[in-house]
Amino acid sequence: MDFALPEPVQQLQGRLRAFMEQHVLPADAEWHRLVAAGSYPLAIVDDLKRKARALGLWNLFLPGLAPDEPGTRLANAEYAPLAEIMGRVSWSSEVFNCNAPDTGNMELLHLFATPEQRTRWLRPLLEGEIRSCFGMTEPDVASSDATNIAATIRRDGDAYVINGRKWFTTNALHPNCRLCIFMGVTDVDGDAHRRHSMVLVPMDAPGVRIVRNLPVMNHVAIEGHCEVVFRDVRVPAANLLGAEGRGFALAQARLGPGRVHHCMRTIGACELALELMCERALGRRAFGRTLADFANIQDWIARARVEIDQARLLVMRAAWTMDQAGNAAARVDVSAIKLVAADLHTRVLDRAIQVFGAMGLTPDTPLADIWTWGRAMHFLDGPDEVHLRTVARHELGLARKRMGSTAAYYRTPAER
Amino acid sequence: MDFALPEPVQQLQGRLRAFMEQHVLPADAEWHRLVAAGSYPLAIVDDLKRKARALGLWNLFLPGLAPDEPGTRLANAEYAPLAEIMGRVSWSSEVFNCNAPDTGNMELLHLFATPEQRTRWLRPLLEGEIRSCFGMTEPDVASSDATNIAATIRRDGDAYVINGRKWFTTNALHPNCRLCIFMGVTDVDGDAHRRHSMVLVPMDAPGVRIVRNLPVMNHVAIEGHCEVVFRDVRVPAANLLGAEGRGFALAQARLGPGRVHHCMRTIGACELALELMCERALGRRAFGRTLADFANIQDWIARARVEIDQARLLVMRAAWTMDQAGNAAARVDVSAIKLVAADLHTRVLDRAIQVFGAMGLTPDTPLADIWTWGRAMHFLDGPDEVHLRTVARHELGLARKRMGSTAAYYRTPAER
Amino acid sequence: MDFALPEPVQQLQGRLRAFMEQHVLPADAEWHRLVAAGSYPLAIVDDLKRKARALGLWNLFLPGLAPDEPGTRLANAEYAPLAEIMGRVSWSSEVFNCNAPDTGNMELLHLFATPEQRTRWLRPLLEGEIRSCFGMTEPDVASSDATNIAATIRRDGDAYVINGRKWFTTNALHPNCRLCIFMGVTDVDGDAHRRHSMVLVPMDAPGVRIVRNLPVMNHVAIEGHCEVVFRDVRVPAANLLGAEGRGFALAQARLGPGRVHHCMRTIGACELALELMCERALGRRAFGRTLADFANIQDWIARARVEIDQARLLVMRAAWTMDQAGNAAARVDVSAIKLVAADLHTRVLDRAIQVFGAMGLTPDTPLADIWTWGRAMHFLDGPDEVHLRTVARHELGLARKRMGSTAAYYRTPAER
Amino acid sequence: MDFALPEPVQQLQGRLRAFMEQHVLPADAEWHRLVAAGSYPLAIVDDLKRKARALGLWNLFLPGLAPDEPGTRLANAEYAPLAEIMGRVSWSSEVFNCNAPDTGNMELLHLFATPEQRTRWLRPLLEGEIRSCFGMTEPDVASSDATNIAATIRRDGDAYVINGRKWFTTNALHPNCRLCIFMGVTDVDGDAHRRHSMVLVPMDAPGVRIVRNLPVMNHVAIEGHCEVVFRDVRVPAANLLGAEGRGFALAQARLGPGRVHHCMRTIGACELALELMCERALGRRAFGRTLADFANIQDWIARARVEIDQARLLVMRAAWTMDQAGNAAARVDVSAIKLVAADLHTRVLDRAIQVFGAMGLTPDTPLADIWTWGRAMHFLDGPDEVHLRTVARHELGLARKRMGSTAAYYRTPAER
Repeated sequence: MDFALPEPVQQLQGRLRAFMEQHVLPADAEWHRLVAAGSYPLAIVDDLKRKARALGLWNLFLPGLAPDEPGTRLANAEYAPLAEIMGRVSWSSEVFNCNAPDTGNMELLHLFATPEQRTRWLRPLLEGEIRSCFGMTEPDVASSDATNIAATIRRDGDAYVINGRKWFTTNALHPNCRLCIFMGVTDVDGDAHRRHSMVLVPMDAPGVRIVRNLPVMNHVAIEGHCEVVFRDVRVPAANLLGAEGRGFALAQARLGPGRVHHCMRTIGACELALELMCERALGRRAFGRTLADFANIQDWIARARVEIDQARLLVMRAAWTMDQAGNAAARVDVSAIKLVAADLHTRVLDRAIQVFGAMGLTPDTPLADIWTWGRAMHFLDGPDEVHLRTVARHELGLARKRMGSTAAYYRTPAER
Repeated sequence: MDFALPEPVQQLQGRLRAFMEQHVLPADAEWHRLVAAGSYPLAIVDDLKRKARALGLWNLFLPGLAPDEPGTRLANAEYAPLAEIMGRVSWSSEVFNCNAPDTGNMELLHLFATPEQRTRWLRPLLEGEIRSCFGMTEPDVASSDATNIAATIRRDGDAYVINGRKWFTTNALHPNCRLCIFMGVTDVDGDAHRRHSMVLVPMDAPGVRIVRNLPVMNHVAIEGHCEVVFRDVRVPAANLLGAEGRGFALAQARLGPGRVHHCMRTIGACELALELMCERALGRRAFGRTLADFANIQDWIARARVEIDQARLLVMRAAWTMDQAGNAAARVDVSAIKLVAADLHTRVLDRAIQVFGAMGLTPDTPLADIWTWGRAMHFLDGPDEVHLRTVARHELGLARKRMGSTAAYYRTPAER
Repeated sequence: MDFALPEPVQQLQGRLRAFMEQHVLPADAEWHRLVAAGSYPLAIVDDLKRKARALGLWNLFLPGLAPDEPGTRLANAEYAPLAEIMGRVSWSSEVFNCNAPDTGNMELLHLFATPEQRTRWLRPLLEGEIRSCFGMTEPDVASSDATNIAATIRRDGDAYVINGRKWFTTNALHPNCRLCIFMGVTDVDGDAHRRHSMVLVPMDAPGVRIVRNLPVMNHVAIEGHCEVVFRDVRVPAANLLGAEGRGFALAQARLGPGRVHHCMRTIGACELALELMCERALGRRAFGRTLADFANIQDWIARARVEIDQARLLVMRAAWTMDQAGNAAARVDVSAIKLVAADLHTRVLDRAIQVFGAMGLTPDTPLADIWTWGRAMHFLDGPDEVHLRTVARHELGLARKRMGSTAAYYRTPAER
Repeated sequence: MDFALPEPVQQLQGRLRAFMEQHVLPADAEWHRLVAAGSYPLAIVDDLKRKARALGLWNLFLPGLAPDEPGTRLANAEYAPLAEIMGRVSWSSEVFNCNAPDTGNMELLHLFATPEQRTRWLRPLLEGEIRSCFGMTEPDVASSDATNIAATIRRDGDAYVINGRKWFTTNALHPNCRLCIFMGVTDVDGDAHRRHSMVLVPMDAPGVRIVRNLPVMNHVAIEGHCEVVFRDVRVPAANLLGAEGRGFALAQARLGPGRVHHCMRTIGACELALELMCERALGRRAFGRTLADFANIQDWIARARVEIDQARLLVMRAAWTMDQAGNAAARVDVSAIKLVAADLHTRVLDRAIQVFGAMGLTPDTPLADIWTWGRAMHFLDGPDEVHLRTVARHELGLARKRMGSTAAYYRTPAER
């Protein structure tokens, strides 16, 4: 094993860190001021996008990036340490055109889009000209079990007619959002894993209505986690993404790298929380000592450190497995890292908040917002319980195959 | 021991439950609609107050309530089961004139106010005509150690001149808030526990400025958890509450019953969360079963039940101890229950949210708001770590007194 | 509610505490010396039994004790605080004829034995002349689900013929053990809950063979947790206890009070561990402070205190419910307390051991032995998971009955 | 990063696994039978040692192994995956001459012994002809703080005179144990970190007395965790190891690789526990399902998997850091892995035991013994709390250096 990051990756890290310090952080206050006033800070982000792209910090997330596509082509394990750095400022990924759900959508289009679909949607996404959302989760069914998805995509002549209610549709309120990749049932009677398809729905299609922007633990995201109603929305049959009945498979394919990105951003966020926690503990006094002198707070700091380090290694291994053996080979690994990262996220943030005292609850530190995102991580791409189930069933499957292999370890008396 | 609630208390519970169902819950949607629109729903609350008072559900929290004061006099252990019921709807306590921090302020005034102070402030508070806030916590010091409080109250002739910055001043934005009980240093050189005093500050006194309403984990309370600046605020010397230098003692005296109320409301909120969790688990299906059929979710439900029951008993015992032996005798007990209740609050709510899936993050259930209040409970009236310290030092003090008493239990070989 | 113990119970506590200090603890070293040498310290125990009985500290556990039966009749909630005191010395319950499984067996016989059975078995048990064991758990099935019990009790003329393998049969190696209450299947085709019966098996019946004494986490109990084989053991038909097919019901009836006893002994053991932990923390120094000065160790002490107190209240309430409404009414409560007590037991003991450093692992303190018993508590009378299931299913059952009752708490937008 | 094990290491793993299956496991029952009868199974072990050595599976732990020394030279990160495999059978490390504390002692001697000391002690240790122990921990002081060590090593002419009481001296009862590396104070008035020295004490020196073999949570190790008294033991001055006053530094130097070994054995033990747990869950039924169908047990399995994987990566990284940058560079890392491994060990084993039901408590599976070793791991080479302190102080040290670096992340309103 070799735990060193390759030199070029270390150089990219250096450049990205410098960019964050020199360009992103100085814009953070103004970004929040505008958001508080209710508008998407497009001008800030557009300016930073230009700068980032000029420095090659663009589309870093796509291992399959073609030479004629804009951006820097990196393997998953090369991008992961960069995603970690982006995780320190919640809104920064977009600056590098690396934000969810556009990344996952670009991946899907990269893999499955027709030439026409590529021209119309993928290219402007890669250029950062438009944004997109992903219509998956539904309020009325347990979407954790994707076969429950109930929205319908009915073929009608040359068109598909779409009906359904989606929610937690992230990005739908982004001023540049033009596309929704929509999942629904095309074959009501089909096998549970072959009933669904995906279609490309322009956001301005008649019948698409954003009902509301859902607060997440009272946090309202300016780009929106929206409830969206699709009523008799017609799109050309050519808007089908991939083959009919392949929606479930596409959804699976989409998840792997995106989960790595989420997890690495979580790790970056946790590192920041740990830094903040340490500084606070060193600077605050109670009962005649600094907080850093109290053994219980030391314990939180130490546990945060060892938990973050372990989680990062697990995520990096998953990214490496994808690069070595393909996304499918890492299926269980990406369930594992989602699980680990969500736990880490809320646990470390909760401790950091506790060290800050009541201030930790306020918007004066980024901790409350970061925690909120961590709480959402416990559901994002499937709740913890589904990932636990995936990991356990895989483990039990292996055990079933080698059933009896542990016999030699028992010491039951001979007579039985 | 006798674990039954006395018949009169059970009857009060029945009346209060009926009131909540017939009057409070039906008004809940409108209450939230108005709050979302940014205004305090005074009309709703005033109407409900009249009804509640007419039914004797008024000022239930004050064991020392005099016959000529409005309300129903109850012991702490009699009121506690009623506070639990109020805990099911965050804003309902005010309907019964039992909301913090007015309750604590009324207690303080009841114990220490001069006849003039009683007429001007206590009486209208007991009548529910005005509201009040409590200026204690400061952003610039660890207020968990109350001796850190740094705001100043300087005697100047017939007046006190007040300077300082307080935050988490709850109720300051209530449209009827007229009074702040303010804690600050009167004797800079005094002993740590004799340096502080409390004065009564009218909210309309020149120099009192509400800087902002602090979001708590992104939740904005309409009555306000405010940052308030006091700059050269002059109040008559007669506004001193109790004796000079007794601020710390008053702060201690104020805390006991209030903590019982908070804890019982927590228990009521947790019962509601458990009910919601069970209903959701029974009604939602994934992977061919209801969520209620999954053993992990059953475990959460069972643990929530046993944890809630244990916490309630501990809180009731603390209330009973106060009634039997006075608030001072329950000092360590009220630290213990604060600790237990805050842990319970976030743990049970977190599990309930998890059962709800992403919906649990939204405002469509009360869970997110209740959780938020629970997170604040970890700091309210002192962070968990201070309460742990209080309980541990008490326990170690007892151990120190009986040092050596465990000698008979050791089995070290004789030679040593 | 009234949290005070009645005066007579407080007096009994005082007498029992004095007895423990004056008689039991001084004999503890010799007791262990003899056990280490491999023999049951009959002489010590018999001497103490005589003394205890003379003082009225005898058969304190049996609320139904008749006036002509030896001992002091107490309600469950009166005996519970005494069991707590006995819990401080693992072997002391027998001194007061209050040790498991004899207590449960005496209860069963008290409820269901024929006059002949009472004379032959119950009377000498009450006198402390003989000891008994309970043949329930089997190695080859998950006995957590009692309907799995597979041993057979076949009617053959005037006799029953018994076959099966039991384990964790406590007391089977006690030199005075004369009786096994044996559970097995009498009606193979019967309904799952009506297939089993109990019979009284003399330990000297041909075909009863003690195979081995099972170490429990390497601890070997001198009275035995035995694996016992019953091969074609014949007993008279008159040895049936209660009616045929009622074994499951008898097993249920037997459990309630016994669980209260176990739980209260756990609480006594945890109190002792907390005392030891505090003394150690006060007396040991590292890095320039006593261990008691470290905030992490203070946290353990504080949490132990609040957890013990909560658990005790829950157990006392279960005992009180039994006294008020009968054992059946407390069925779910005794599942809850078993669960809570087992968790408490290992958690508090583990912390105490940690404070002692490596010494905590050795037999020089009672901690290792007490922990071991706590680990067994997680299985005793059913594993935690079965108790969690019982509590959850009860809670879900209540929720199912009031389904829809939480509707008023939802704030889903009107359109859905 | 590269998470693949090098091909030669994979081959060694294959050979070692085959050896375990073909030679070690078949001898396991007889090994335990002999140990239960009270004798060290020398013949078994010696036979296996010969076979292992013949296959090059010998002295795999020593990166500095010289060409003329017996064994296979491996880097720490190459040996670690082999230690994991050895961890599956508690007594197997000795077969490969890789057992603690001999490994640590050989390391110390390899680094610091004089030529004479090498000939007399190191060579026969490397040959596996003799065994050794390490006299460090003392019952009367908190040895977690090594500066507390109080045994004395007094210079007297050409000799040192040794006095003190040590305990948890592992291996002292091994029939071939000939040497104790003893730590004590040579300079009572010296600086805390320069007061101690180490000397080589022959086990047959007059005045060395093994007082007893300490049971660890009731488990008695046949090789002994002994309490040993040294009374006026005289050894030649030439028996000093390294320089006078360097005992503390030597103790530090000794710990790094040994902790990696312990941690990897823990991981191997946890993998075995997980295998056993899965097989049991698949094979056992309750309430109409296999245990593997219950979601709570699935959760335990999944969490065990992700925790083991994370821990292994952390340990491997520490081993890699040692290889790349030296043992000193990994000082904090080896504290971190000790912490993580001890937690993992008891947590995973506890879950496995729970899946086994009461059988998990018995010696019929290896789980109880493995758990016991895990509990000891929480103290071995320093209690968890010392490692937490080490990690936290390091982290705080880094934070102190970059104090203020997080300023840009705060959003406190401008006026303050």
